Amino acid sequence: MTERASTSSAIERLTCVIPAGGVGSRLWPLSRASAPKFLLDLTGSGDSLLRATWERLSPIAPADRILVVTGNRHRDSVVEQLPELLPHNLITESEPKDSSAAIGLAAAILELRDPDAILGSFAADHVIRGEVLFQRAVATAVQAADQGYIATIGIHPSHPATGFGYISCGGARGDLAPFDVYDVTEFVEKPDAATARDYLASGGYLWNAGMFIARATVLLDQMALAEPEMVRALREIAAAWGTKRGAEARERLWPTLPKIAIDYTVAEPAAAAGKMVCVAAHFDWDDVGDFASVATLLTRGRGSDLAVLGDGAQVLSDASSGIVVSSDSDRLVALVGVEDVVVVDTADVLLVTSKSRAQDVKNLVNRMKLSGGGHLL
Amino acid sequence: MTERASTSSAIERLTCVIPAGGVGSRLWPLSRASAPKFLLDLTGSGDSLLRATWERLSPIAPADRILVVTGNRHRDSVVEQLPELLPHNLITESEPKDSSAAIGLAAAILELRDPDAILGSFAADHVIRGEVLFQRAVATAVQAADQGYIATIGIHPSHPATGFGYISCGGARGDLAPFDVYDVTEFVEKPDAATARDYLASGGYLWNAGMFIARATVLLDQMALAEPEMVRALREIAAAWGTKRGAEARERLWPTLPKIAIDYTVAEPAAAAGKMVCVAAHFDWDDVGDFASVATLLTRGRGSDLAVLGDGAQVLSDASSGIVVSSDSDRLVALVGVEDVVVVDTADVLLVTSKSRAQDVKNLVNRMKLSGGGHLL
Repeated sequence: MTERASTSSAIERLTCVIPAGGVGSRLWPLSRASAPKFLLDLTGSGDSLLRATWERLSPIAPADRILVVTGNRHRDSVVEQLPELLPHNLITESEPKDSSAAIGLAAAILELRDPDAILGSFAADHVIRGEVLFQRAVATAVQAADQGYIATIGIHPSHPATGFGYISCGGARGDLAPFDVYDVTEFVEKPDAATARDYLASGGYLWNAGMFIARATVLLDQMALAEPEMVRALREIAAAWGTKRGAEARERLWPTLPKIAIDYTVAEPAAAAGKMVCVAAHFDWDDVGDFASVATLLTRGRGSDLAVLGDGAQVLSDASSGIVVSSDSDRLVALVGVEDVVVVDTADVLLVTSKSRAQDVKNLVNRMKLSGGGHLL
Repeated sequence: MTERASTSSAIERLTCVIPAGGVGSRLWPLSRASAPKFLLDLTGSGDSLLRATWERLSPIAPADRILVVTGNRHRDSVVEQLPELLPHNLITESEPKDSSAAIGLAAAILELRDPDAILGSFAADHVIRGEVLFQRAVATAVQAADQGYIATIGIHPSHPATGFGYISCGGARGDLAPFDVYDVTEFVEKPDAATARDYLASGGYLWNAGMFIARATVLLDQMALAEPEMVRALREIAAAWGTKRGAEARERLWPTLPKIAIDYTVAEPAAAAGKMVCVAAHFDWDDVGDFASVATLLTRGRGSDLAVLGDGAQVLSDASSGIVVSSDSDRLVALVGVEDVVVVDTADVLLVTSKSRAQDVKNLVNRMKLSGGGHLL
């Protein structure tokens, strides 16, 4: 596709963008508006997911090429977590506008810094195990991106997950890399259990990990086909960014932007137009979307085990399975004969649910928004 | 049987004895050594079970004929709950010795006060609904007791309960009362589910509510057949009770007494000897032995409901059933899609179990005794 002469190797033109937004409602009451998922330690490592993301990207890009987009209210927490983050690489949103605006603004800023800039977007709140495989997949994706494609990284499914979207892959693209690069036929939404089993049986389906790697300009031009006004506004904000007019431009234009996920403005239309490729990867990945995922992660998939998360959590269990999350470490949590239970013990809220219903925590949170429980969210 | 001339009517010679002992391990962590079951409000009425017992007995006997036997450590709590209790009607145990010693000492004290005294023993920690039916059953039992029998009150089962013992009844005793009095064939232990269903189907089985009504002397003489040394010691303690020698006698003899339930020293041998009769009663009765019973009580048997116990408990539930007990009213308890769950939220311990496993809480408590968690019991 686009062929451009570049003055440096593709991987040296990669800037990693970490969109750090999203409360993670299904992880309430551990996650709160004031303590969103990316600031939590969901693996028991002692690090927040954001910090772990930074450390995963550091071998790929130096600090001056890692950029974070987050909400104004989380600015201080992000800086505390990431002392190496350079001030001009911290982009704050005055209000949340979903991933098209967040990643689009980063792209618009990057294309002004370097017309050949390659952008790789990696969520702040996912868990990955297998650093070398991750780095190799990113390097492959960057090669494809340099050729003008929009690349994503898909994960070989380990089980018929119903909590993730899938990528349907087409033919191998040996012209872009010797291994692991395929055309994207389409992106498909979270399937039901039977469909997920079909995907796994048929092969050719990968988990959509929400990673996008593309030249900044290619990504914006693709977005402009769907949302021309938005991209014009983003480029205007970017042009003023860091100047005296910067604040004014953001305050004027940011509130006008639509809230829309980049899946709809970029990934799906690009796939339909044959401009999207996928790197098929084998590292362990989880978006830890709910407490069932946290439990799976902590027990490494042993469903009969009891997972415990929390410094100094005191748990006394009699043949119970599931997960106990304790952020109020003084209390003893005693479980008697409960299967796949989810107990989240915080100072002001206690949640009890089951692994199979963990997704429905979001419904409760939505009800609370309407019914006046907002101070606990 | 024994025929004695009495100077007053039988019901006027009834003294109600309330043995107030037993922690109620299966209700931990709500019940503690320092807050035993009889001091708890398990019905949401605002009254402790002990207070409710007192109020249930007050229409049957005036305050000077209601006597409480409790442990030294609960003396102050009992007095606080029962300001009407006369000081000489409060019997304290220096250490717990089970029901034979507790009720036996009360009987020994009563027979000295009045050789024709009738003793009725009623647990401090059961729940009864249907006061008039209860009073009528007691009056009938007192008639049988006056004739020299040891009477118990059995409850017509409303369901095939596996948590209660049963009384197998024989022929009707029209000679003792026109209605509802039967010979006791035998006492049977808590049955399994199939046996409980058989009991209900066959008829002739009543729940054993642990109530005993007999002349004090008859009860002691029966006990003496099984435990002659104990009864001699109890009568010696009683003879010195309230005198200068009282403390000395109790300190010397009480520790020597065996720990044995009155079922084994009185009820079962008396039944075998044909000296036991049963009044079949229709009031609602529950020994509220575990949280499943508490839930049944609070929802009046509607198993699909969620029961909530606790002043100011804040519960947010999304199609869950079971029971939430909250003694730490500041916290919100949120339930998502859990069935028959039991959540007990106290300041220092959180318990999560299920109604079907509620009995097993006792096992956990026993484990904690051995493993150094005793400060939480």
